Amino acid sequence: MQVMDIFQVLVKVEYDGTNYFGWQKQIGQITIQEVIEETLSKFLDEKIKIIGSGRTDTGVHAINQYFSFKTQRRLPIEAYVFGLNHFLPKDIRVKDAKYVSSDFHPIFSAKKKTYIYKILNRKEPTALDFNRVWHIPYPLHIDNMNICASCILGTHDFASFRASACTRKNTVRIVYESKWEKVKDLIIYTITANGFLHNMVRILIGTMVEVGLGKISPEDFVFIKECKDRKKAGKTAPPQGLYLYDVYY
Amino acid sequence: MQVMDIFQVLVKVEYDGTNYFGWQKQIGQITIQEVIEETLSKFLDEKIKIIGSGRTDTGVHAINQYFSFKTQRRLPIEAYVFGLNHFLPKDIRVKDAKYVSSDFHPIFSAKKKTYIYKILNRKEPTALDFNRVWHIPYPLHIDNMNICASCILGTHDFASFRASACTRKNTVRIVYESKWEKVKDLIIYTITANGFLHNMVRILIGTMVEVGLGKISPEDFVFIKECKDRKKAGKTAPPQGLYLYDVYY
Repeated sequence: MQVMDIFQVLVKVEYDGTNYFGWQKQIGQITIQEVIEETLSKFLDEKIKIIGSGRTDTGVHAINQYFSFKTQRRLPIEAYVFGLNHFLPKDIRVKDAKYVSSDFHPIFSAKKKTYIYKILNRKEPTALDFNRVWHIPYPLHIDNMNICASCILGTHDFASFRASACTRKNTVRIVYESKWEKVKDLIIYTITANGFLHNMVRILIGTMVEVGLGKISPEDFVFIKECKDRKKAGKTAPPQGLYLYDVYY
Repeated sequence: MQVMDIFQVLVKVEYDGTNYFGWQKQIGQITIQEVIEETLSKFLDEKIKIIGSGRTDTGVHAINQYFSFKTQRRLPIEAYVFGLNHFLPKDIRVKDAKYVSSDFHPIFSAKKKTYIYKILNRKEPTALDFNRVWHIPYPLHIDNMNICASCILGTHDFASFRASACTRKNTVRIVYESKWEKVKDLIIYTITANGFLHNMVRILIGTMVEVGLGKISPEDFVFIKECKDRKKAGKTAPPQGLYLYDVYY
C-alpha cells in the first residue's frame, strides 16, 4: 500500500473586509474563507479546506491574517504567493506562505494576537476612509482612554466585554499591550493578548470611547470590568475601524 | 425692476477618485463634477454650475479640492455641509463651505496648490490600498530621488514633464516645495507650486522613480528637464497614488 505524503502550508493574507460577510463560511453569503477555499481548490485542482487563525466579523479588515491547508502536492512556495494572487480578487492578497509541520495548528499554535483600531477624530467627514475608520467628530480625552487601556494590562476576566452570544467558558485573557496613540487626526488603539472573546476589542473600544467623550469616568470603566456583565459595558464599536494586525506563532 | 442678489459659495470636498472618470464633466461618463452639480441642483431646486479649482484625472483622489457656484439663495452655510453630504455618495464628502465675494474665482484666485503622491515600497502586495498607492516591490534610492526633487525647486520650465496633448503656452512654473519622505513602508512625495501642467506631477514622479530604481542618474534627470521634450522623460506614474492635497487662496 502506498502512503501518500500530506503537506501543510501556512499562508499570510491581507484583506479589505468591506465587501465580505466576514471570514467564516456561511450559507448564502460571500465570505473571505469561502473565496479563498474556492480559489485554492481551483488553483490546485484538489478539494481544499482552510483553517484561519480566527474569524473576523463583517467589515473588519486584516493586515496579517493566517490560514493553513493540507495538500498532496509540494509546489514551490512562490506558486502560492504569485499563483493565488493571480486568481484572488484584488481586495484579498497573499503576502507570504511557508510549509509547516503537520502538528502545526493556526488557532492552537498561536501564542498571541494583535488588533489595531482606527478612530478618525476630526470635525470633517472622510470620503477616502469611511470604510476604514470610526469617524468621531467630537473631542476625545485620550489620557483618560489610556488610563482605561492600562487597566486591562495583565491577566483579567473580560466577561463584561464580549458579545452576549459568546459561549466561551473561560473569559480570562492575558493582555500584553494596550494603548491609544494620536497620529495626526487618527487615534489608534493597539491591543495584544493571548486570545480574544467575541467582539471583545470592539466592546472595549466602545466603552473606552464613552470615557473619552466624558460620558463615564475611568473609575466607571474599572467598575464595569469588575461587574463581569456585558450589559454594563458600552456599545460595540463599528467594525470598519478594526484590523487584525498580526498573529504570533 | 428688481435686482436679484447672487451669492457665491466656495466648497471644500474630499473624494476617492476610484469610481469616477475624473473631475471634469464628460458625456457618457460618471464624473465628480457631474455628480456634485446634479446633487446641488436637486438640493437647491435651481440649475447649478460649479467651477473646480482644477481637474483631477480618472483614479486620482482629493483630500482638499475646492469648487464654487453661484446661487440666488443665501442658505446658512451648514446647510451645504450637512445637507449636501446627506445626498452625495459616500466617496464624495463636503468638508467645509463659505460665502466668498463675487470676484473670487476658484482657478484664478488660487495662489498655489499642493499634491502628494504615495508609493508603497515593500515586497508584499496590498489588499487594503491597491486603489490608493503605487506599489513598487523593488528597492528605491530615496536620497537620489530627493536630489531630483530639490532640482526643481524655484522657477523652471516643465515642458519635459507634461502630457503630449497639453497645449499650455507657458510651461514655466514656480515650485515652492518638492520632497520625498519615508513613512514606514510608504514613500510620500509632496509638491507645492503656483500651478501644474497636465500630468506634470505624475510624469515627474515616473521619471524620479526611474532614478530611484537606478535606471537613470540624477544628472540624467536634470538633462531631461533641460531638454524640454516630453519624449525624454519617464513614464507617467499611475493615477491611484496621487492626491490633490490642498489649494491656497
